[in-house]
Amino acid sequence: MIAPASLPFTETEFALTLALLLVAPLAPAGVALLNTGLGRSRSAAQSLLGSLLLVAAASLVFAVVGATVADGVAGSGHIAIINGKPWNWAGTGSWLLQGLGTAPARGQAAVLFYFVALALAVLIPWGSGADRWRLTAGAASAVLIGALFFPFFAHWTWGGGWLSRLGVNFSLGAGFLDVGGAATVQVLGGLCALAVIWITGSRRGKFPKEGFSTAMPGHNAVYILFGCLVALVGWLAFNMAGALLWLGAAPSALPLTAVNTLLSASGAIAASFTLTRIRFGKPDASLCANGWLAGLVTSSACASLVSPMGAIFTGLVAGIGVPLLVEFLELGVSLDDPSGAISVHAGAGLWGLIAAGLFAPQPGQFVAQLMGIATLLGLMLPLIYFVFMLLNRFVPFRVDADGERIGMDLHELGGGAYPEFVVHRDDSYR
Amino acid sequence: MIAPASLPFTETEFALTLALLLVAPLAPAGVALLNTGLGRSRSAAQSLLGSLLLVAAASLVFAVVGATVADGVAGSGHIAIINGKPWNWAGTGSWLLQGLGTAPARGQAAVLFYFVALALAVLIPWGSGADRWRLTAGAASAVLIGALFFPFFAHWTWGGGWLSRLGVNFSLGAGFLDVGGAATVQVLGGLCALAVIWITGSRRGKFPKEGFSTAMPGHNAVYILFGCLVALVGWLAFNMAGALLWLGAAPSALPLTAVNTLLSASGAIAASFTLTRIRFGKPDASLCANGWLAGLVTSSACASLVSPMGAIFTGLVAGIGVPLLVEFLELGVSLDDPSGAISVHAGAGLWGLIAAGLFAPQPGQFVAQLMGIATLLGLMLPLIYFVFMLLNRFVPFRVDADGERIGMDLHELGGGAYPEFVVHRDDSYR
Amino acid sequence: MIAPASLPFTETEFALTLALLLVAPLAPAGVALLNTGLGRSRSAAQSLLGSLLLVAAASLVFAVVGATVADGVAGSGHIAIINGKPWNWAGTGSWLLQGLGTAPARGQAAVLFYFVALALAVLIPWGSGADRWRLTAGAASAVLIGALFFPFFAHWTWGGGWLSRLGVNFSLGAGFLDVGGAATVQVLGGLCALAVIWITGSRRGKFPKEGFSTAMPGHNAVYILFGCLVALVGWLAFNMAGALLWLGAAPSALPLTAVNTLLSASGAIAASFTLTRIRFGKPDASLCANGWLAGLVTSSACASLVSPMGAIFTGLVAGIGVPLLVEFLELGVSLDDPSGAISVHAGAGLWGLIAAGLFAPQPGQFVAQLMGIATLLGLMLPLIYFVFMLLNRFVPFRVDADGERIGMDLHELGGGAYPEFVVHRDDSYR
Repeated sequence: MIAPASLPFTETEFALTLALLLVAPLAPAGVALLNTGLGRSRSAAQSLLGSLLLVAAASLVFAVVGATVADGVAGSGHIAIINGKPWNWAGTGSWLLQGLGTAPARGQAAVLFYFVALALAVLIPWGSGADRWRLTAGAASAVLIGALFFPFFAHWTWGGGWLSRLGVNFSLGAGFLDVGGAATVQVLGGLCALAVIWITGSRRGKFPKEGFSTAMPGHNAVYILFGCLVALVGWLAFNMAGALLWLGAAPSALPLTAVNTLLSASGAIAASFTLTRIRFGKPDASLCANGWLAGLVTSSACASLVSPMGAIFTGLVAGIGVPLLVEFLELGVSLDDPSGAISVHAGAGLWGLIAAGLFAPQPGQFVAQLMGIATLLGLMLPLIYFVFMLLNRFVPFRVDADGERIGMDLHELGGGAYPEFVVHRDDSYR
Repeated sequence: MIAPASLPFTETEFALTLALLLVAPLAPAGVALLNTGLGRSRSAAQSLLGSLLLVAAASLVFAVVGATVADGVAGSGHIAIINGKPWNWAGTGSWLLQGLGTAPARGQAAVLFYFVALALAVLIPWGSGADRWRLTAGAASAVLIGALFFPFFAHWTWGGGWLSRLGVNFSLGAGFLDVGGAATVQVLGGLCALAVIWITGSRRGKFPKEGFSTAMPGHNAVYILFGCLVALVGWLAFNMAGALLWLGAAPSALPLTAVNTLLSASGAIAASFTLTRIRFGKPDASLCANGWLAGLVTSSACASLVSPMGAIFTGLVAGIGVPLLVEFLELGVSLDDPSGAISVHAGAGLWGLIAAGLFAPQPGQFVAQLMGIATLLGLMLPLIYFVFMLLNRFVPFRVDADGERIGMDLHELGGGAYPEFVVHRDDSYR
Repeated sequence: MIAPASLPFTETEFALTLALLLVAPLAPAGVALLNTGLGRSRSAAQSLLGSLLLVAAASLVFAVVGATVADGVAGSGHIAIINGKPWNWAGTGSWLLQGLGTAPARGQAAVLFYFVALALAVLIPWGSGADRWRLTAGAASAVLIGALFFPFFAHWTWGGGWLSRLGVNFSLGAGFLDVGGAATVQVLGGLCALAVIWITGSRRGKFPKEGFSTAMPGHNAVYILFGCLVALVGWLAFNMAGALLWLGAAPSALPLTAVNTLLSASGAIAASFTLTRIRFGKPDASLCANGWLAGLVTSSACASLVSPMGAIFTGLVAGIGVPLLVEFLELGVSLDDPSGAISVHAGAGLWGLIAAGLFAPQPGQFVAQLMGIATLLGLMLPLIYFVFMLLNRFVPFRVDADGERIGMDLHELGGGAYPEFVVHRDDSYR
């Protein structure tokens, strides 16, 4: 992939990118609503307040230090020479976003893209820690994601770093391709979710000593499904902005990206609907929502690289695979992931990155994709887990047992989300 | 109206159209939320999951076959010569959206417009079948709308088909004008709603053997009214994109379109508020929401063709007519239309198409509008009803009596939308 | 500040402004949802129906007479010569928005901006009158805001009026700067809210004869916090459109505006979270939402004029000041402001206007800002209060005691927002 600043960027392309990046924040907004709906009513206010707080914390720290590392402005970076090849491992942007207003247009738009991407990335683990992950620990994690994990990986893929140079340096296709953030946002966020679940453990009563796991349905299906619709609108814009910025696509390539994004989600929900209907006798609304989102996640890797039929195919696979993966993680390995983020974001994101390698015409692209995936699983996941474990010592992730029983809202905020509505609590998972 | 590909389209106009078409999906998103709010709590998850599913099904089938018929790309088509005049009755686009990425800019944007239009069209009957129309039957209907009804009519009005050529061939103004989809989306969707209501019948207890019809208020006024606000945002963008694409309007004509869209909705809700206040002593929130939406629907025909005062006037008429029509359909002819789609979408759409003919300066435009309306009522409605009746034999539309009593959510999805909230059911319409 | 029509405006800049102004209505939509969430369940339908109605009423009257006064089209105006200096006090636009379609591009975009700004302005007092302000009185107030208060002040700041000419005529910096509507929308709306609270008085039971004030928490934290997210998306677009229109900024200056808007909100919520956590032991969700919004309000004055660190600083101050001001107004001077509009919109708006003067490099800018503030507090507030008092004689603002007890929904609309949900009412404030 080519470094941002080195491509031409017409005034129209710049203006279009800005307009798209203003619609794109509907993606994190939709995901925040969806996360809240998938949690329980006793944690709804904490869930959404946490979403605002995590986005705020990550944005602040990214502005102060993260953007320097990610360096969308200059295109240069810290380079280590290994075996005669340059490995660009960190950016050299200015601190505190100084000089943003006078940077080249493409670099400015890249910074805006980073902020939207980061907002989405920090919301992914937040949904998985629902009903037990403390606000301050969530905010502290968002600080680490915004200062450390996201900036480095974003530099490697988008800011001219070594993953994006695999093509130039090792003839691996166009280098690692992550047009719409399938790796840098979705898989990275999904791996953070995995680490959070490992550290916080399951919700009380989720896996009783005897018998099966307890179903804990989301408390509001309207939030879940309307969140899916809102997310779609943002996703369309985000994938298109990514194509303009990271693929150097012309505006005339963008309707295809948009159509493919829609078709990927459509194929995925059709598959999830059919699959859950066959397996359980009735379709499952939550898993269909997960399927829809998985289709969007897949499109973040593929939408600009495949044909419409390819988009439907990759969506179908995501829509079949994700409900099965959700089931396996819950029943097979007892991971309690309320929002299904590991399956939806990490799982479908990985599938999308592989599919992008399979569909790409350039030789070596598949290997480049595998190298990016290996970096995520082999380097980022251990790093995230280690850093979060360390953080957990100073800012305990998990709420205490009493807090969990009364609910995050009452415990952390002193009041519920729905003070006037009568709620009945299922004693089975009290 | 002139075929898409034949007009010039600057890079800026293309970019603006793309940006508008990314905001436009908020129109179907708002309508989906509004539909859910107008239904009952026991069907809320089914309503919104159905919205996602119907949009997905229609999009998939449109990508595979529908776009070929609609043919926004080439501008040519299947032409029958009758009495020496060419009747362009179907497009000749490529199958499976092949070649989309290399099509002319205007054609590409047209395809994107079709997808948004289609999503809106399939949601209209879905709201009318609330609380009794089965998910799979809804999805099957969406497949037929996306493969058959919508592509043909869209070709006739937007893809260079015979309705758009009434001006060239028979000197009827500029041909049938449907700038923002009042015919192809709103009336078409409203007629589908009528057919669905004819086939599914009324909700249980809606029209008891003795006495008046039972009021079944929507279960969440916030969803209804916030849906109206979200729909407005999408509608502004959709009407402006339509003006650019189908009227060949310059960007400098678009603020007028936007202002007129807002004024039409404003005039309509002011009228509905006043009317219902006078008739019932208190204003009716649902009918005001219907009025607002009716103003938007009217603007889909008129917003680019009238002055601001004309927009207020057409909105006022819609805001008075639609509540009266809702009342007449319920009390006069016992049609059970939970979302009021027949009145709001078909009724206000027809009024808008007529008003566009009245306000247009070209001679013959009024006749052209009447021909479009005659095609909708005389050809499309019987066709839709016949095909849906046929479909009903294979995929029964109506849920069985037990299913209706427990609610669509429990019956079709195995769980409710609000599992933690205490809901009381009015026994009078159990 | 320079009159709109006198600056060049490329086709790309015009198209970008249109695209931004289509996303901007999400700001009023988000505020409407937030207002509803902050009120009580028994008034939720009235709150949102009122939002639609007030926007409609204000839009209609602005189209008929207001735009003439605001005059974004021509840039000229009614001018009084005092001491040899011209004081442009009212616009001379055409009536009924005639000629909008053929006006210069910048003037057309300005009109669109006015409509969005006005929609936001009328929603601000509506939230403060929650649970007691009657629909018709709210609509009548919106008519006055749209016909009188807003058009004059908008003309003075944006339409080439005397406040915008303080630089040219009295060498006060660039004249009064109100790039994103901090004065014309936020402070003006907040002062209307103050007048409404003075006139309607407190909700029943809010300030009992003995003891402290009664806490009346918002009925739905999800609406409050999701409203904050939706508002952010609209705000980003609105601030950027303002920079293009009123500052003559180039598109390349806009990413800074967007980043600053986000950072201002982020700094503010981080501050509100920390402050309320320290003061009350637990963070307060409503006050954090107020803080977030206060950060957005501050950015409406500053986002285009400060550095990213300046944006964080101004946001932090707003996030600390607003919760303290909310507390003071409630406990110190017994003002019952359910949505906190006086603190959030007037308070943070004034702070932003001052900060803009402090950060601006031009000499005299601080004095220009003070003159704008003096006009708001010394001229507009008394005028608004006087006119609203007069209006109150003919259209009583406050609902009667019985109506308040049963709730605005039942009293004004004849039905509740949530007819199927079981609601318990806290007898302490019945």
